[in-house]
Amino acid sequence: MTVETCNRDRLWNSIMEIGQIGHAEVKGSKVGGCHRLALTDKDKQARDLFVSWAEEIGCTLRVDGVGNLFLRRAGIKNDLPPVITGSHLDTQPTGGKFDGVYGCLAGLETLRCLEEQGIQTLRPIEVAVWTNEEGARFKPAMLGSGVYAGVFKLEEVLATKDESGISLGDEINRLGYQDQINNESPGCYQYYELHIEQGPVLEALDIDLGIVAGVLGMRWYNVEVSGRSCHAGPSPMDLRNDALVGTAEMITELTKIAASHSQDSRCTIGELTIPNSSTNVSPGKVQFSLDLREGRLADLDELQTKAFEAMHRIAFHHKLELSIKETWSLPTCPFDETCLANIQQACESSYPDIKPHTLISGAGHDAVYISRVAPTAMIFVPSEDGLSHNEREYTSPEQLEKGCNILLNTIILSANTH
Amino acid sequence: MTVETCNRDRLWNSIMEIGQIGHAEVKGSKVGGCHRLALTDKDKQARDLFVSWAEEIGCTLRVDGVGNLFLRRAGIKNDLPPVITGSHLDTQPTGGKFDGVYGCLAGLETLRCLEEQGIQTLRPIEVAVWTNEEGARFKPAMLGSGVYAGVFKLEEVLATKDESGISLGDEINRLGYQDQINNESPGCYQYYELHIEQGPVLEALDIDLGIVAGVLGMRWYNVEVSGRSCHAGPSPMDLRNDALVGTAEMITELTKIAASHSQDSRCTIGELTIPNSSTNVSPGKVQFSLDLREGRLADLDELQTKAFEAMHRIAFHHKLELSIKETWSLPTCPFDETCLANIQQACESSYPDIKPHTLISGAGHDAVYISRVAPTAMIFVPSEDGLSHNEREYTSPEQLEKGCNILLNTIILSANTH
Repeated sequence: MTVETCNRDRLWNSIMEIGQIGHAEVKGSKVGGCHRLALTDKDKQARDLFVSWAEEIGCTLRVDGVGNLFLRRAGIKNDLPPVITGSHLDTQPTGGKFDGVYGCLAGLETLRCLEEQGIQTLRPIEVAVWTNEEGARFKPAMLGSGVYAGVFKLEEVLATKDESGISLGDEINRLGYQDQINNESPGCYQYYELHIEQGPVLEALDIDLGIVAGVLGMRWYNVEVSGRSCHAGPSPMDLRNDALVGTAEMITELTKIAASHSQDSRCTIGELTIPNSSTNVSPGKVQFSLDLREGRLADLDELQTKAFEAMHRIAFHHKLELSIKETWSLPTCPFDETCLANIQQACESSYPDIKPHTLISGAGHDAVYISRVAPTAMIFVPSEDGLSHNEREYTSPEQLEKGCNILLNTIILSANTH
Repeated sequence: MTVETCNRDRLWNSIMEIGQIGHAEVKGSKVGGCHRLALTDKDKQARDLFVSWAEEIGCTLRVDGVGNLFLRRAGIKNDLPPVITGSHLDTQPTGGKFDGVYGCLAGLETLRCLEEQGIQTLRPIEVAVWTNEEGARFKPAMLGSGVYAGVFKLEEVLATKDESGISLGDEINRLGYQDQINNESPGCYQYYELHIEQGPVLEALDIDLGIVAGVLGMRWYNVEVSGRSCHAGPSPMDLRNDALVGTAEMITELTKIAASHSQDSRCTIGELTIPNSSTNVSPGKVQFSLDLREGRLADLDELQTKAFEAMHRIAFHHKLELSIKETWSLPTCPFDETCLANIQQACESSYPDIKPHTLISGAGHDAVYISRVAPTAMIFVPSEDGLSHNEREYTSPEQLEKGCNILLNTIILSANTH
């Protein structure tokens, strides 16, 4: 197999140039953060720049009804379903410059290399820009890829409103996409997504390449713990019925359970509220969010069982009432073996000295939904300090180059398969 | 000594009538709760009703700069400092109908009895309504009595803002007090405050009268625990730096320390906030309030030392940063021997069959500050289930009558002393 290599500086400079749109200077950050919510003027500006670069090398644009962009480089047999790669250009409210953007720009860099080298592929190749991946503006996350995969109904997604009451459909029209919409999809032969890890595992292992075998299953719950509030002074400690004291024990126990359950177990209590709280009143009620994740469905079920048992046991012990309601879930998502083998082969050819680390992504990605309609896999590169959804997010040009080379050679392999 | 008796039904009905202002229907509550934050329209309505009742029996009103109300019944020698009794009419966000209100209305009932019986006292008698005792709207608590006693500067208290940015001074003007203000105080000969216990001790002993020998010392702290937030999925449990997980251990440990320190030890975490919280982000920062109380100063110092050591140890273990700031404190407060003897004498005369229980209050009261400028003592009646700062707070008409009779006869005794 011939090994192609990308242009590191061109890739880096393109990421930095897109990152100027919504750029935020941030103390202690190497390149600054990025504030570019989905379908705002800034997001459109980034999309337009991206499209102009792709068109410069002869790509054609298709926009679907939810505003997903597909930049297509023709192949030899254009009636075959294309190989698709991509990610998203929207960011968190105070996000970084790499989450999503890297996957789109590495896709573009792949096409630029092919064009530069005059390489023709059997299948066409498309780079996708999925709409509203972050879910920071329109809820839930991954609406664009969700519509593409038939998880969400287009009409319902178009009617989804942001906090100020503007609908996603209104924004698609306002930004001028309504005349370009073409919902006739050519299908997808295989889908590859390159992304920063957003976690600390690759960095801790000092390995620059990760092959993502799947995505953790996730379940979200609202938990409410009820006891009886009382005045902070007159009630002796042994006569109290404090909901926060019980909750604290639950948090400690839930964390311990996840830490010892499996290496893929995650338990996060991200939000906690004491209604009508006051410094000198022991809490009578506590509400908190619980986010459980696991690599395999059976493990997720078991993790949930252990978590529920622990919470009920502690509530009983403290004479507290407990209510647990599931609010959202995503099943575990194993990726496609053939796609994973292609990535593995590209790694061996491009970097025979690196043994890529196989891991399961803890974060959701557009690839999770696409995997329901096309064979899919992902590639990770490290995130410094494991940071993302954070203005200090950083991955070095050398690491970005490595990931892009794997994507480039994986796509050539895939696009030349009949 | 002649023993006077109050009108039980009139006292009860007055408390219930004030309780209609901000009344909340509450399941399982005998009379419902009360929502009446300091210096809101509802608080003003309760104050106005109270003032109108006092004026009906010939009392005159003085309002001081912080909005404390003094309803004065003239004595024989009006240049002598008055005997003052009183409490507050503001409530917790979801409070009951008796905390504070009982002390004010029993003061009014005392004046009504004296007027009805045509009893003249040597000294004038004043019933005080102290501003913002609860501290639920403006922090800290007991601002009105604190200004009266010179603990707080009037200008600073007037500038204190609630959570929505409205200052206490603005509210005093908005409610129309600015034209009535008269800061010329006639002094205070002795101060008596009648209150529900707000704890379970008298009920557990089945004694309807408590003589309060003093108040627990208290210290309030703002604690901030800082780690690093991370995405709920990609970060393995052992690589996290979760501020809430450390905080949960602190809450458990602090509660254990207070439970084993002494019978008067109290530890309450009443407020807890996760800034910028999100379901799928592990908390990078947690802020919570800590309220420590003890009966003796040396014990309070020791309790604080143990609490601080535990928090620092847990923070260190979890690699978290810790900041503890004391925001408010009250030293332990022993009450005046002469005042306590007067209450004791009134008990023996009115209820020779009851042996009142002498106890230390766990809750702060306006009496704590007043005791710094005048001889002071308090009387308690039981709280059902030890509840207060709670919509189900309840004390029976018969118990309220007993306490009021003690207040009435104590005040006659005091007001006739030269």
